Amino acid sequence: MTTYTMTPIGFMRCELTTRAETPRNYDISEIVGVIEILPEYEDALDGVEAGQTVVALFWLHQAERDILKVYPRGDRSRGLTGVFATRSPVRPNPIAVSELQVLGRDRLRLRVKGVDVVDGTPLVDLKKKI
Amino acid sequence: MTTYTMTPIGFMRCELTTRAETPRNYDISEIVGVIEILPEYEDALDGVEAGQTVVALFWLHQAERDILKVYPRGDRSRGLTGVFATRSPVRPNPIAVSELQVLGRDRLRLRVKGVDVVDGTPLVDLKKKI
Repeated sequence: MTTYTMTPIGFMRCELTTRAETPRNYDISEIVGVIEILPEYEDALDGVEAGQTVVALFWLHQAERDILKVYPRGDRSRGLTGVFATRSPVRPNPIAVSELQVLGRDRLRLRVKGVDVVDGTPLVDLKKKI
Repeated sequence: MTTYTMTPIGFMRCELTTRAETPRNYDISEIVGVIEILPEYEDALDGVEAGQTVVALFWLHQAERDILKVYPRGDRSRGLTGVFATRSPVRPNPIAVSELQVLGRDRLRLRVKGVDVVDGTPLVDLKKKI
């Protein structure tokens, strides 16, 4: 089987230390954190500025990859659902997509609001929001 | 350096054969294609149905990974911009995020509208849209 290999472009630094305390998604999170971009990618950040909303792709390093059905949001009354029909962190390739508001930038550090991943989560991509 | 490894969960089948003819983003694409999910992930599709909008993450297997600045949309009048401030396919970890309308589903095949990747592009994740 073909494989695709990624390396981190940065890491999230924030107050969240466990998955249990992490907001379910960025759209209900008021948490502020700092994305630290690795120095070799400084040029790729040119144009990212305070006031923008960015799309951040994180590698969910703590997520199970071999579970195909879940109870969405832990609610057993709704039955098991396929992970591709949910936002569960559990999935074959555990990438999270978060839309974050950039509050400020200091060279390699982006202060962002809407954090929904734990401290230390690797960032694998950053994009302009459409 | 830590690396993260993914394998495809499926592939896009569509009429687009070259990057030059591919719409810039899903939001301006009326193109219909078929996502073929690999059989081992059928359970993960449970709950994905016609009428939904899904978030599809593609691995842009043809994209350059060592370019950090681009002319957005090829427009040289606006100067070079860091790839993290753009939607360019060129980026260190070339993942595309597309929002696609599910027109129909036949077991492992999803007929979708809004295609902005070429035929044969690997799919690495599928999520519910928030």
